[in-house]
Amino acid sequence: MEKIRRNERMGAMMRLLSAAPNTVQNLSRFCELFGAAKSTVSEDIDLLRGTVEAFDLGRVETVTGAAGGVRYRPVVSREKARETIEGLCRELSGSERLLPGGFLYYSDILSTPEIVNRMGEILATAFYDPDPDFVLTMETKGIPVAFATANALGVPLVIARHSSKVYEGSAVNINYVSGSGNIETMSLSRRAVRENQNALIVDDFLKGGGTARGMVELMREFNVSVTGMAFVMSTLHPAKKRISGARSLMTLEVTEGDQPEALVKPADWLL
Amino acid sequence: MEKIRRNERMGAMMRLLSAAPNTVQNLSRFCELFGAAKSTVSEDIDLLRGTVEAFDLGRVETVTGAAGGVRYRPVVSREKARETIEGLCRELSGSERLLPGGFLYYSDILSTPEIVNRMGEILATAFYDPDPDFVLTMETKGIPVAFATANALGVPLVIARHSSKVYEGSAVNINYVSGSGNIETMSLSRRAVRENQNALIVDDFLKGGGTARGMVELMREFNVSVTGMAFVMSTLHPAKKRISGARSLMTLEVTEGDQPEALVKPADWLL
Repeated sequence: MEKIRRNERMGAMMRLLSAAPNTVQNLSRFCELFGAAKSTVSEDIDLLRGTVEAFDLGRVETVTGAAGGVRYRPVVSREKARETIEGLCRELSGSERLLPGGFLYYSDILSTPEIVNRMGEILATAFYDPDPDFVLTMETKGIPVAFATANALGVPLVIARHSSKVYEGSAVNINYVSGSGNIETMSLSRRAVRENQNALIVDDFLKGGGTARGMVELMREFNVSVTGMAFVMSTLHPAKKRISGARSLMTLEVTEGDQPEALVKPADWLL
Repeated sequence: MEKIRRNERMGAMMRLLSAAPNTVQNLSRFCELFGAAKSTVSEDIDLLRGTVEAFDLGRVETVTGAAGGVRYRPVVSREKARETIEGLCRELSGSERLLPGGFLYYSDILSTPEIVNRMGEILATAFYDPDPDFVLTMETKGIPVAFATANALGVPLVIARHSSKVYEGSAVNINYVSGSGNIETMSLSRRAVRENQNALIVDDFLKGGGTARGMVELMREFNVSVTGMAFVMSTLHPAKKRISGARSLMTLEVTEGDQPEALVKPADWLL
């Protein structure tokens, strides 16, 4: 095989690292792949670290120790996060997307990969520190953004269902009070999680907090700690939610009167 | 700003291209970002094209014309696809994951980002040619893999629901015959798609084909053509499905007798 130049190693390494975010990859993998010495690969990594920093493209980190190596985190800077979210707020504000009953149509935003991936990276950036074992969401609308967050965190996604399914095996069911005040069921396969893990809850919408509260209680049944809660959108009213400590990307307020409008703003922690 | 070296440009460019798969990016974007001449950026792209090819990491393509530029497609080679799917088949075969009624538990596989992204890339590789406008799936289990496929194709994901929701606006509902023989409802927001688009259907499981047939009929209501159908798993029985022309990654057969086993195999087109 021809000698592989640094140029080529940099491109290939960036692709391999970013394809498995937040996952420590052993240096010897790259040594073998490139037929290069460890010192050379280490230099490559130093260069790559500088590059992603210079262009605000995330972070390349070296992890020492027995299970050491290098990992890529698609960390989003405060500035870029704000820019992205401000753009979304402009798109979602106004009367065009308002539906009867004061609901906002944004399902398209919640399933456009480029937007969803960026939202997932912004949320993951806020939760690299507690370092959850998995992301939990409740079907359906939040699944893509929960998946993108799980991807950026390098952990599995776990999906709670409205009812238990034959293809999920034995399940734990709980009842919870939904936003509309109804008693609903939430179900999760016994195989989905293990005791003593840490969960990050991610969902698309936070209003009263009934569903989120249900997810917290579901995790308690599994002896799992909830290490954080993150939402795409939360309503300003009611101000008091059934859960506390949640982060959202945007807040929603619908003006009253003959011609109601949606006021969508970036959440405070992004400013 | 210091002069940016080719090494650095290669890493940054790879990240920017792969963050928006199958999306043509104008060369002038890179010229500005790197403060480099167009000829230099063109050389970088040629190098990058060679690199991803050499390491089997997808394809970097130059698109000519007014809206021209460069795009990255996470094309998976037949060899790598087969290797990935064979690994999954080994993990899914046997008796451990079999549930009462001959169902197979693989929800974990369907929501582990690294696996899901690879499956999405394999499916996208088969459908870059018809070049669909969006990916359609039916809630819930197939959403992550449909999202990953949409991401690799650079198109939106559209999610059909079991019933219409207030936050989706006015919707088209159809009835269809599910696998269990029940009449069920499938609903899609009017805003979700436009007339004369092309859809790629992606879902996790194909047995009788009732749900897939429902999705085809739903698309007809919107005057949308179905340009392909892709599934993670299809059962060998019944051999005759309600739809034809579907591709799946794996086939499932459950042996009969006292100790049933799941036989999971890569689909023929991957061999």
